[in-house]
Amino acid sequence: MDLTNIFKNVDTILIYNQDFRKADLNFFYFTKFLDAFSLSDTYFFKNQERQAIVTNEITSSLEKLSFRKSKFDVLMFKESSEKYELLKKLLSKSKKVGISYSNLPVREYENLKKTMPYLKFLDIDVLLSEVRRVLDSFEISLIKNAAKITSEAAEEVLNYIKEGMTEMELTAKLTEILMKNGVREHAFPPIIAFGEDSAVPHHIPGARKLKKGDFVLMDFGARYRRYDSDMTRTYVFGKGSEKQKRIYSVVKQAQEIGINALREGVTGNDVEMTVRNFIDTTEFKGQPDHGIGHGVGLGGYPAIQIGSELVLKKNMVVTIEPGIYLKGFGGVRIEDDVFVKKNGFEVLTSANKEYREI
Amino acid sequence: MDLTNIFKNVDTILIYNQDFRKADLNFFYFTKFLDAFSLSDTYFFKNQERQAIVTNEITSSLEKLSFRKSKFDVLMFKESSEKYELLKKLLSKSKKVGISYSNLPVREYENLKKTMPYLKFLDIDVLLSEVRRVLDSFEISLIKNAAKITSEAAEEVLNYIKEGMTEMELTAKLTEILMKNGVREHAFPPIIAFGEDSAVPHHIPGARKLKKGDFVLMDFGARYRRYDSDMTRTYVFGKGSEKQKRIYSVVKQAQEIGINALREGVTGNDVEMTVRNFIDTTEFKGQPDHGIGHGVGLGGYPAIQIGSELVLKKNMVVTIEPGIYLKGFGGVRIEDDVFVKKNGFEVLTSANKEYREI
Repeated sequence: MDLTNIFKNVDTILIYNQDFRKADLNFFYFTKFLDAFSLSDTYFFKNQERQAIVTNEITSSLEKLSFRKSKFDVLMFKESSEKYELLKKLLSKSKKVGISYSNLPVREYENLKKTMPYLKFLDIDVLLSEVRRVLDSFEISLIKNAAKITSEAAEEVLNYIKEGMTEMELTAKLTEILMKNGVREHAFPPIIAFGEDSAVPHHIPGARKLKKGDFVLMDFGARYRRYDSDMTRTYVFGKGSEKQKRIYSVVKQAQEIGINALREGVTGNDVEMTVRNFIDTTEFKGQPDHGIGHGVGLGGYPAIQIGSELVLKKNMVVTIEPGIYLKGFGGVRIEDDVFVKKNGFEVLTSANKEYREI
Repeated sequence: MDLTNIFKNVDTILIYNQDFRKADLNFFYFTKFLDAFSLSDTYFFKNQERQAIVTNEITSSLEKLSFRKSKFDVLMFKESSEKYELLKKLLSKSKKVGISYSNLPVREYENLKKTMPYLKFLDIDVLLSEVRRVLDSFEISLIKNAAKITSEAAEEVLNYIKEGMTEMELTAKLTEILMKNGVREHAFPPIIAFGEDSAVPHHIPGARKLKKGDFVLMDFGARYRRYDSDMTRTYVFGKGSEKQKRIYSVVKQAQEIGINALREGVTGNDVEMTVRNFIDTTEFKGQPDHGIGHGVGLGGYPAIQIGSELVLKKNMVVTIEPGIYLKGFGGVRIEDDVFVKKNGFEVLTSANKEYREI
């Protein structure tokens, strides 16, 4: 965690976690309280000398284990009004305070400004995402675990796929498998699509029943201790047509070309264009109409976007997910999580991606 | 939806929905786009003459169906900068704009103030929660449906409870049942606790295996089209002891006393004290150390707190959930969702709550 650039701009980092539903992932990045689901109305403070947590007694009593393991000072308040008194003391030497403009709610912002009008509150969202993009070995181990659980679930759920089942039923079974393997939540709402539904990249699983010859597209990911995996596999249920096989073959080649382009020093755009240039030589020219990949880790989408001028660095994890979609017919997408290394890459999601009739 | 009080304080309501993870439920309250999961970076505008949505082209293309069904003007932008131009026009007659201080992120707030420095932005969180507490018939039908799915799942999951299974495995099975019945997410992370774990009111399901004689406590709820149910049932696995039966019997009586106290005009505190006064006549005096109930509906916890001076009104839905917890031994909690009527109540969650050995 290299905070040099942040501390060039501010002397203090102040992150607020509202509650389970409105969590600021920066809070979990710094504290690594990854199993603390009940913490609400809690601040994380960090300057170059000290790290502290300001939290309320009630929620924190549920999270004592996290605190005991941590190296932070823990300051507790009963009433909201005391919260700002504690913060005032903690921030007594601060001048420029970095906050997350996209996460902090106006209520806290206004109260901070009112109780400490002499402080400057500056947006460090962009600086934070630059720091968070490059992962340390602990973070990578969490993503690897999420990727392993995701890959195994993709294989296990195949045992339950049968004619006539709905997309929702398959989603339910997949969810059960993930949870029984220790996952508390999906990285994002799973996209499970049969037949023509697979042509909709962000399809929401519904009552569509599985028929012979359908594509079965599964795009999902385990969230393991707040770190995500994101994988897509597409199969044919029953016997596939020649056209289905052609689509699959192009997507698979495109995805492998994308993965092979990954290494330190290339830009997201380099990777995207390599994949697109290949697809444009085929009958599926112009596909897909979504990006070829994105970052993955703490939260689904830290600010790496394949297709941007951002230069990839070692220890980033990105997904490569080309797809081809024919409206009314169906679509294929194949996606893996890939760990970028100095001279290459390591694919973290291991589910079989050969063309398969299931 | 009676907005008289809000429009006494502001001339415009402006609600921002950031994304799936940082949703402002007020946005869904006004728009009723309950199935729109992809809408991000979207504003809802309402004054006494007009209602409009300001949204970006990309996410909105996924949500066309919601828009088509709605009666709002839909204004689309490509770049963020255009967003504020659209808002400027929309707000050209506004002076006092009501926003949600607990939901709006600083980034939007600062941009609104910068692009429209002549406007006053006022916090209407409290006014909004007063409005949202009293439900209309459509909202009540959604909660009834969530309560029905929850109740049926509680019965169905009993078929899968067996010795040696873990709390996580039971959580997984319950999740599968809910999802296959049309639920996309839990109202909140389920609390599934065996044996001594049931003495922890906010227990997180873990690897604890089910043994003969254990309490099995299940506190969970379906979220149906963003409206929640919240129910708790406690059983004994195998043969219960006399002590377990005594605890159960007191909790069940306490819960029925609480429900019977509900009607228009009583305060949350009246209900709470009625329940506590009863428990204090038993050997479990002083229990529980959590509140006796709360509001339920759009989001888990609109601002009704049993125990407060708030006067209950007809068409509110509240939960009644007393519990008795003996550390190291186990606990019992029984919870139902109850619809408050002028002269009484209607219990919406119907799973059997007689003492049961399963």
